[in-house]
Amino acid sequence: MEKFMKLALKLAKKGTGRVSPNPLVGAVIVKDGKIISTGYHKRYGDFHAERNAILNAKTSLEGSTLFVNLEPCCHHGKTPPCTDLIIKSKISQVFISILDPNPLVNGKGVDILRKNGIEVHVGLLEKEASYLNRVFIKFITKKTPYVALKVAMTLDGFICDNLGKSKWITKNNFNISHNLRNFFTAIMVGANTVLKDNPQLTCRNGGRNPIRIILDYEGKLAGKNFSVFDDQSRTIVFSSRCEKYNGAECYPETRPEDILERLYSLNIDSVLIEGGASVLSQFYDFSDELHLFYAPKIFGKGLSAFSGIEKYIDEEFDLKIKKIRRLKNEFYLEVIKNVYGNY
Amino acid sequence: MEKFMKLALKLAKKGTGRVSPNPLVGAVIVKDGKIISTGYHKRYGDFHAERNAILNAKTSLEGSTLFVNLEPCCHHGKTPPCTDLIIKSKISQVFISILDPNPLVNGKGVDILRKNGIEVHVGLLEKEASYLNRVFIKFITKKTPYVALKVAMTLDGFICDNLGKSKWITKNNFNISHNLRNFFTAIMVGANTVLKDNPQLTCRNGGRNPIRIILDYEGKLAGKNFSVFDDQSRTIVFSSRCEKYNGAECYPETRPEDILERLYSLNIDSVLIEGGASVLSQFYDFSDELHLFYAPKIFGKGLSAFSGIEKYIDEEFDLKIKKIRRLKNEFYLEVIKNVYGNY
Repeated sequence: MEKFMKLALKLAKKGTGRVSPNPLVGAVIVKDGKIISTGYHKRYGDFHAERNAILNAKTSLEGSTLFVNLEPCCHHGKTPPCTDLIIKSKISQVFISILDPNPLVNGKGVDILRKNGIEVHVGLLEKEASYLNRVFIKFITKKTPYVALKVAMTLDGFICDNLGKSKWITKNNFNISHNLRNFFTAIMVGANTVLKDNPQLTCRNGGRNPIRIILDYEGKLAGKNFSVFDDQSRTIVFSSRCEKYNGAECYPETRPEDILERLYSLNIDSVLIEGGASVLSQFYDFSDELHLFYAPKIFGKGLSAFSGIEKYIDEEFDLKIKKIRRLKNEFYLEVIKNVYGNY
Repeated sequence: MEKFMKLALKLAKKGTGRVSPNPLVGAVIVKDGKIISTGYHKRYGDFHAERNAILNAKTSLEGSTLFVNLEPCCHHGKTPPCTDLIIKSKISQVFISILDPNPLVNGKGVDILRKNGIEVHVGLLEKEASYLNRVFIKFITKKTPYVALKVAMTLDGFICDNLGKSKWITKNNFNISHNLRNFFTAIMVGANTVLKDNPQLTCRNGGRNPIRIILDYEGKLAGKNFSVFDDQSRTIVFSSRCEKYNGAECYPETRPEDILERLYSLNIDSVLIEGGASVLSQFYDFSDELHLFYAPKIFGKGLSAFSGIEKYIDEEFDLKIKKIRRLKNEFYLEVIKNVYGNY
């Protein structure tokens, strides 16, 4: 059973970066122990995974088993409800990793299937499926974007040396960094990072470009020519001087909670914050996970990654180390702060 | 061949903490593909590994092969030369991982064996053997102790929060920490660490206690009752007020290089420095390896582990990540700065 759901999850991942703010879903149909069809949700607005798998099938689905990592929908959205099609196709058994986290749906798809005589099992690879759709689960249940922080630092936590130089602290993070830019819907940096590095903030290892979000309260970048204002991707500025950006998309919010509320209203389900220290610190308490890249350097002094916050040893720290990966002579840490679902 | 040398290295490790300033050496004797005897150097002044293996043998060694991780000695020290005994026992072949790093000996043991018709192979598991005896190699060739730094810190490099609290940043490092205290001959801390934590600085997981070295330039601890002055182990103080310690072993050196010279003259081959930030920083440039324990905490502000040094991004950093190990929700990094031998 597990191997089929693993395949469904693998297929689901192929939609990464394309389906937002929809969930990542894959589906596998099995009959007599053999896979007879597969499908996944490819792009926002396209057919759901179950529908694709059913439509892809070349034989009768009667008596087959469907594996899908999220509860099938039972309501009319951009596409008609998947439950109807599952029933019509005479699939006799459905394995689901997790229920739809939307409290308005949660369990209703399962109910409809069961009322129609289909055997339904919920919970197969639940942890993996919750983790894969952590952005979707938070966005739906908390009505605010999922926030990830990305930092490249020395072994003693500095992102710049004491002369302010930060280029390049780490050298072996290209692939993971650009996978993150593909995974999250938007990327955010402060004006100082733009002034200092003039980054493109694009995804350069095959994924799609994230929406670029620039925090420029004081309008330091207004009317100027930086790569983030080119046409490679949509750019959203937050500034108190919106009139000065030659018609760029600009909003006046300055507090992190207000910025996140604005992003939610723009249907942006997730944001990867890449710095600098001041932006990372401002959003630290709103963040859900951290991506930390460590270089084999020790500065002793410099700009500390989260210099704008102050926490004490006796506080509760909710950081869980999810992954440690060696990158040549550097290493990468994925740290989870808030768990949505069960992982 | 490798499996016999691996066993020799494993046996060698059993002498950890007991043979200083001698090297860690194990020996395995093989005849017709079978191990017929083993031995290791158990304690400073005791027989060498080869001698023990030869004496332990219950059958004739004629035509056998000896595996030993360090070149056999050919001079009269505390015990007679091992080369004599090897020749006399009619061992016909010897595998050696590394030559004796002592430039006065280096290769002479091999020469004597070869001159006596014994087939000698040098270099089997050379990297592992150099690493195991890195302390010995540095002490012999550089005439100064091997220096290791141990730090427990947050993900952003702080050893204390901004209220000065540091107890306990990490919780899962007991075994590795106490193995380190057994591995290194001495342990060093500053007076402030003693004042704050009153540590025993003993090895509490089965090894022997290290020699305790306390840096108390200003005599803050003089005449007072701290655990480091108890009789569990030898304690050496460095202070400008040696007359005030009730006859404790005390020296007046204050600069790191002078302290290390004194330790060398005392035949102390290695020291593990456990803090605080000021001592770690003073000895940073003299250190050979770092043992970094990270807790899943982020303070933002506090006392940075190496706050007394200042390095810049464009400098050459010679830090090589040797080992990354997860310790429940924490992790441990072994970082090598200086390589002695070849590993």
